[in-house]
Amino acid sequence: MKLATYKDGSRDGQLVVVSRDLSTAHYATGIAAKLQQVLDDWNFLAPQLQDLYDTVNGGKPRHAFPFDPAQCMAPLPRAYQWADGSAYINHVELVRLARNSKVPENYYTEPLMYQGGSDDFLGARDDAPFASEDWGIDFEAEVAVVTGDVPMGSTPEQSLDGIRLLMLANDWSLRHLIPDELAKGFGFFQSKPATAFSPVAVTLDEAGDAWQQGKLNLTVQSQWNGRTVGMCDAGQEMTFHFGQLIAHICKTRNVRAGSIVGSGTVSNRAIEKDGKKEWVKGYSCIAEKRAIETILDGKPSTDYMKFGDTIRIEAKGRDGLSVFGAIEQRVARQGK
Amino acid sequence: MKLATYKDGSRDGQLVVVSRDLSTAHYATGIAAKLQQVLDDWNFLAPQLQDLYDTVNGGKPRHAFPFDPAQCMAPLPRAYQWADGSAYINHVELVRLARNSKVPENYYTEPLMYQGGSDDFLGARDDAPFASEDWGIDFEAEVAVVTGDVPMGSTPEQSLDGIRLLMLANDWSLRHLIPDELAKGFGFFQSKPATAFSPVAVTLDEAGDAWQQGKLNLTVQSQWNGRTVGMCDAGQEMTFHFGQLIAHICKTRNVRAGSIVGSGTVSNRAIEKDGKKEWVKGYSCIAEKRAIETILDGKPSTDYMKFGDTIRIEAKGRDGLSVFGAIEQRVARQGK
Repeated sequence: MKLATYKDGSRDGQLVVVSRDLSTAHYATGIAAKLQQVLDDWNFLAPQLQDLYDTVNGGKPRHAFPFDPAQCMAPLPRAYQWADGSAYINHVELVRLARNSKVPENYYTEPLMYQGGSDDFLGARDDAPFASEDWGIDFEAEVAVVTGDVPMGSTPEQSLDGIRLLMLANDWSLRHLIPDELAKGFGFFQSKPATAFSPVAVTLDEAGDAWQQGKLNLTVQSQWNGRTVGMCDAGQEMTFHFGQLIAHICKTRNVRAGSIVGSGTVSNRAIEKDGKKEWVKGYSCIAEKRAIETILDGKPSTDYMKFGDTIRIEAKGRDGLSVFGAIEQRVARQGK
Repeated sequence: MKLATYKDGSRDGQLVVVSRDLSTAHYATGIAAKLQQVLDDWNFLAPQLQDLYDTVNGGKPRHAFPFDPAQCMAPLPRAYQWADGSAYINHVELVRLARNSKVPENYYTEPLMYQGGSDDFLGARDDAPFASEDWGIDFEAEVAVVTGDVPMGSTPEQSLDGIRLLMLANDWSLRHLIPDELAKGFGFFQSKPATAFSPVAVTLDEAGDAWQQGKLNLTVQSQWNGRTVGMCDAGQEMTFHFGQLIAHICKTRNVRAGSIVGSGTVSNRAIEKDGKKEWVKGYSCIAEKRAIETILDGKPSTDYMKFGDTIRIEAKGRDGLSVFGAIEQRVARQGK
């Protein structure tokens, strides 16, 4: 099933069930008002939502209405956890290669993750507000999962069973704030402003056999100012699958229902063509494009985003239909 | 007023109002069931809770019952944000001095903060479960505040107005996991397991004039296995006050109601006595004791905590009464 959260002026919005083709929606009132409630009590509430979903797909229930992604908050407008990985090691390799630094050995054996802020997410069509263009505004197209309860010490395989929903994320990053923050040793903080999520979150069955052992084998498309810059395969080259990412969190603590876990920037390797490397799949964040430029030309030539720029992130299923709806955001000057 | 969250088998527990002397409690049913609700709608609900608090303090309302800290979850059993600072620069100086590394210049001009996990906090009397003693189990006695909404771009002074509640925190740390994590560059993650909080959270007026411009001028007492190891002044030597910490978060994003912001380990400078340094106030985490030992003797002699060890953290007001109740935890083997 597909679930979204409609804006209603409240902090957590109103849960709606959305038809598979994203054309129609229906309030989940009577079953649950908020998505967090559903995650807190999944086994009881999910089947009831599934029934409503079947009805919405089957015909037009009386209270259905046209689904409008512009009315969506993030599926979880605020969450108790947002832990983001860097699961595509190719991304790390590129960025490191561009600055002539080796990838540490343990990057290949255990996931790199950071804890993100989760008190104030952006909806799929919300403007992304920043005080300054000088911060190095960048998008990051990612896949994310929402979990149930996963107890401390769970294995990657056990952790897979804790995955309830899939989404896309736009993990906004402020690149020029990163070097100073990382130098301080405590990781990202100001360099990671509010993250945005796709209009709908979907259960695993919606991905069909594109969901395999904790990886989503679909193409994540990124369009920057209307131009397609990334057609990246989110599955094959994911170095750590979502079960491994969740198990990494679980090593020393419980992961509780409603936790969001991200894949990090979806990234694909270059292919060799006539002895030259070509990054034919494009990129899911500008930092990676700049890394490639630095490797090829000695310096980056693509600037980061400017006020008014737009970014669109979407993934289509094997049937050609949008699975999550599209994230479509505009970079805005804060307060304007 | 003083607020606590009683265990009732649910994820968020039941909000109770606790008398000033921590002897008596009363369910807040009819006003609000959960503390997050109150923070979401502070101006409407807080006065109603204050009325109940006055009644509880004034006499014995019919449904009052003896307050038992063992029944407490964390005041917010889960939260949308837990951002922890390192606001006592003395702590950083000691740890750096012990490993012969200089404190970076910008540590004195802007706060060091990390984003913590907030989906699964521990109650004040809950065991702290760990899979291994080899992880370097350490307590960290801290002051923490709970905020209302503080918009992006707020100044430190504006941020002070967003502080709703004060608590104590025990920010459990796994010291032997830290070097590898910091070397990876993304900051703490597995090295910061679930944090515990004091039995009650209190409004600023409960601290009386001990609360001054974003600092709590009280002594935070730490007793490890029954022995007092820290009597640290939380006020004077706080390098960055809570308004500055919150403003640091706000630089690139909104801070939303129910965010918890921590001070970092409370830490006081040594005094010079007969030409020798003496750390007369003791320590609020073992890592600091070990840093002092390393500075004095070339190596640490105090081990980290073992299964069965206990830690007690408390702060008394100028009237000699416990402000927050005591955090009293036992280090437990996970699953036992």
